[in-house]
This record gives sequence, C-alpha cells and structure tokens, in this order.
Amino acid sequence: MNLVPPVLAGDRLALARLLSLLENETPEGLQDLSALYPRSGQAHRVGITGAPGTGKSALVNRLVQELRARADPPQIAILAVDPSSPFSGGAILGDRIRMRDLSGDPGVFIRSMANRGSLGGLARTSSDLAAALDAAGFGIIFIETVGSGQAEVDIAGAAHTVVVVDAPGMGDAIQALKAGILEIADIVVVNKSDLPGAKTTLTALRATLELAPAVRDKDKGSDWTAPLLLTSATSGEGIPELAEAIGGHRRFLEQSGEWEVRERARVDQEVGRLLRERLAERFLKAQPDGLYEAALQKVLAREAAPGVIVEQLIEGADAAN
Amino acid sequence: MNLVPPVLAGDRLALARLLSLLENETPEGLQDLSALYPRSGQAHRVGITGAPGTGKSALVNRLVQELRARADPPQIAILAVDPSSPFSGGAILGDRIRMRDLSGDPGVFIRSMANRGSLGGLARTSSDLAAALDAAGFGIIFIETVGSGQAEVDIAGAAHTVVVVDAPGMGDAIQALKAGILEIADIVVVNKSDLPGAKTTLTALRATLELAPAVRDKDKGSDWTAPLLLTSATSGEGIPELAEAIGGHRRFLEQSGEWEVRERARVDQEVGRLLRERLAERFLKAQPDGLYEAALQKVLAREAAPGVIVEQLIEGADAAN
Repeated sequence: MNLVPPVLAGDRLALARLLSLLENETPEGLQDLSALYPRSGQAHRVGITGAPGTGKSALVNRLVQELRARADPPQIAILAVDPSSPFSGGAILGDRIRMRDLSGDPGVFIRSMANRGSLGGLARTSSDLAAALDAAGFGIIFIETVGSGQAEVDIAGAAHTVVVVDAPGMGDAIQALKAGILEIADIVVVNKSDLPGAKTTLTALRATLELAPAVRDKDKGSDWTAPLLLTSATSGEGIPELAEAIGGHRRFLEQSGEWEVRERARVDQEVGRLLRERLAERFLKAQPDGLYEAALQKVLAREAAPGVIVEQLIEGADAAN
Repeated sequence: MNLVPPVLAGDRLALARLLSLLENETPEGLQDLSALYPRSGQAHRVGITGAPGTGKSALVNRLVQELRARADPPQIAILAVDPSSPFSGGAILGDRIRMRDLSGDPGVFIRSMANRGSLGGLARTSSDLAAALDAAGFGIIFIETVGSGQAEVDIAGAAHTVVVVDAPGMGDAIQALKAGILEIADIVVVNKSDLPGAKTTLTALRATLELAPAVRDKDKGSDWTAPLLLTSATSGEGIPELAEAIGGHRRFLEQSGEWEVRERARVDQEVGRLLRERLAERFLKAQPDGLYEAALQKVLAREAAPGVIVEQLIEGADAAN
C-alpha cells in the first residue's frame, strides 16, 4: 500500500503507519520515504536534550502550546527518542502526560521511539522519521533525547538547533556530564525555575559556558552565543523567551549560512553510514558461504589481528574477481 | 621502531608508547599490534561501569590492591575510558589519585583515554589498547567507563565480565538510566556502603533485578544470576567478596562455554566494523573526484533520499567496472 498520497493529504493514521514501517526498517517504508523526500527540507529540527529529571517533556509540551497559540502557527511534531530500557517506562509515561496536554490539537503530532536495538539503528531510524515528518508538512520537529551519553547527544546534535535542558538539584553526579553536553548547546535552559537553587544552577552554568568559549566557537564555526534562560513548565516563566530564542536561532542559521553547513554535515554523516552498511552487506553476500565465519575463527584462534583479517578478506575478494 | 620486543620483555615505557600510537590510530601502532596479537587471548577483561559519582575509580583502586595482595597475583591493567569533555578533568584527577594509591607496584599499569573523537573511534581504539595490554601479559584488564549512555555501556559490554556500580543518594535522576545498564550487569555493586541509604539502594536494586529476569536470561543465554554486593572503597567492606565474584564469574564463563560465546560476539562486532570502514574507504578512493560530493549535493537539493543516492553510487561503480 502506497502511503505517500494520504500522508501528503494530512492523514495522521497513514503517517503513524509510515513511521512504524520506518522504525522497523521495512523496504516499503523506505520506498515511501524516497518518494516523500523531495517534499522535505523545510522543517526546523530542534533537538532537546538533558538528563532524566530535568523536566524536558513537560517543557516541550508547554513550549508547543505557546508556539501553537501564536498567529499563523506551524504544525509541530515531537519525536521522543528514548534508548533506555523498556523497564523504565519513561517513554510510555511521557506519552500519557502528553496526550492530556496536547491531544485535541490537530496541528500537533507526537511519536515516541523506544528502540532497544543498536544505537546506529536508532540514529538512522530517528533521522528517517524526522525526514518523513518534514515531508508531511511539520514546520518544527522537536527531537527529544535523554542527553546523558554521547550517542544520545549525537541524535539531538543532528538537529539545526540544540536546546540543552538542566534543572536545579540534579546533584554533583550530573556535573561531569554537563560540560560535554553544553558543547553542543545553541540554547541552554535551566528548567524548574520555581525550585530553590535555580539561580545557583544558572550561575554555575554561566561559569562553565564562559570557561569554554574557544572550543565552542571552533566547534560551531560561527559567532552565535548560546543564550541562558530560566524556565518553568509549571508557571510558564520563560516559555515565550525560549520560543523567541529558538526562532532567533533559525534566523541566525539562515542569515549566517550555518544552516547549509549543518545540513551538509548531517547528510554527509548519513550517506557515509548508509554507504558503509550497504557495501559490507553486498560484500558479504558475494563471498562463498562460511568465509566470513572462517575469518572470525582465525581471529578467535589469535592467528591474526582483526585488521589483518579484514585486509585478507578484501584482497581475497579482489583476487577472485 | 619495532616496539614488540620491548613490550613483550615488560618494558613499560615501550608499552605506553605503543598505546599512544594505537590511540592515535597510526599504521606503526597497528603493525605492532598485529605482531602482538597471537600473544593475546589470556586476559580477563572486566568492564566497570556506573554513573559519575558512584566512586568507580576508588573502588577499582581498592580492588586492585586486594587482588595484588593475594598469593601469585596477576599483573593488572586499568584502562579508564572517559569520553566526556576535557573540561570535566575527571580523567586527569582520577589518574592523580591512582598514582598515589597504586604507584610503586610494578605489577599494575594505568592508562586513561580521554578521546573527544567519534565514539566508533573510541570503541575501536579501546579494544586495540585492551588487546595490546592482553598481549603484554596482563592477566586482568579493568575497563572503566562512565556508564550513562548506551555507547559507553557498549564499550564496557565488550568485556567478559561487566560490573555495574551504583551508590546511595544518586537521586531519582539516575533511576531511569539504571535499568538499561543493569541489563548488561554480571555483578552489581552498591558502593559507598558507609553512607546512609546504602541498604535502601540495595533493596531497590534487588527489586529492579527481580522484575526483569526474563530479559536478562534471554540476553545472557545462560543461567548466571548477577550477585548484588555492598562495598566501601573507604573501609574495604565487600572488596574481598567482589574479587571473589569476579573470579567466580570467569570460572562460570569458562565452564559454561559462555567465554567463547562472548569472545565470538566481540570479534564479530569488531571485524564487522573494520570491514565496513575499509570497504567504504576503498570504494571512495576508487571513485572519480567530486562524485561523492555531487551525491551529497543531490541529497541536499532533495532530488533523492540518502538511501537512493547510496544505491546509485554503488550501482554506478559496478557499471563502470
């Protein structure tokens, strides 16, 4: 069944079905995505990352309500990527709260991914899902990840704009992780501003950000200075300012040429990853049965190092052609 | 300069130099590693992972002192993999404390990796460093990672035995991450047992572990039940028991055949990764200048999806041959 026409016509059930096909990496899904791809390229992908407990989901919900209440609002999609265990139930719980806050607005679409497979798989499928949402006409796509590991940061980092969310009282345990995440931030938010210690957290973050301007400038290759905002999803404090900052960053990206730089880097990464995977699949398919296994056995018997074995495999195939 | 003879003769400076060559992925380093590889395969690789603040480094220091004080002790290497930012300084601080506790014992070798490159790179180089340490005669290699993201877990998960370290008072923020990490645990430790709340943490962990037996059994394909231990790096409580549990797990792996299963999975992953990288490198080198860039531009212009472009690249190369 070709899901392209209904998806382009705004059929949400067809969209949900397509996203499931893409999440399961089916050929039908990829075929539909190829057909949709020329329609993509308009959406502003906004990564939202931060440690568990910083209130990211509630913040995004509030932010989406703010954006949707404005004149001529964009359609908004939320893609919640939760690579943690199904035991945690985070994705499911978050969805329930979301349904309460945002259901009833047909301009908002919410999708959770709780993929237990490889992270490479997660990065690829989340990128495919974002492309489908982009083609389906969503002007802003929030990509929410638990930003405590490099790989989760990579997923959020593939966005045009990265918002890093912190909160007071997260404890010293989180401190060591912060610096690495802050390096990719375009906007830094201290959420739960109603809690005691919010100002202290803000001051500490400002100091950390000021410590590392050289690295940030080099990494970004631009002169954007990440704004530092206090927000509260409960009271709504700072939510309009966050919406402004996100819009302001998009304008900065477009005017500075940085939008193209980031798009190119993202596409390069994605094409490179697909190329490596496809070449290896084709290569292994063309080999005699058991050759790869025999190569593994040689490494296991310590007859040769993995790098040497791989060279032998490739050279053997060359000689056979 | 061929570092193989001095490394095999126990020259620590030559070993440190080889590890630097491997960390920088130089051809000389890989050549030496190939020559050393047949000597590897004896070491027990023990992954130690847990959130920052759980006291992993102090625990490993104490554990190494315990193991080294036993009759006929193995040589022990510690490989501390810290993919976080250089801002955090964690790796450097940890090293200083280590030098104080463990220096003066020629049977202990400590190495930190604070690589800011890609995580693929980090996984590859940490594996190469472990293989070199294995060949150099270390009987136990502790691979320490900050276990808060999937990729860090992957690095520790490549070990024969995975010890997950928790501590009381880490806050709810860490809870969501725990379950995912616990799934790969062979041994679970509540460190800082002298702090209030240690027993509560132990009870909570036991409940989490009991909730998920089916998944753990399936993932492990074996009937090992992860022991849950209370330790204190300060008082030494539980350190002999932890040493016993690690030795017991090695015996279990060997007797059950699980050692071979894990070795095969690790080698498969490593050979697969190298094969993908080498094939893509060779493929791109054989293409006319500018072809890859032109392909990227087509994706950027939304003329075709990444998957379609990659197929075109590969089929175009086939047709040209």
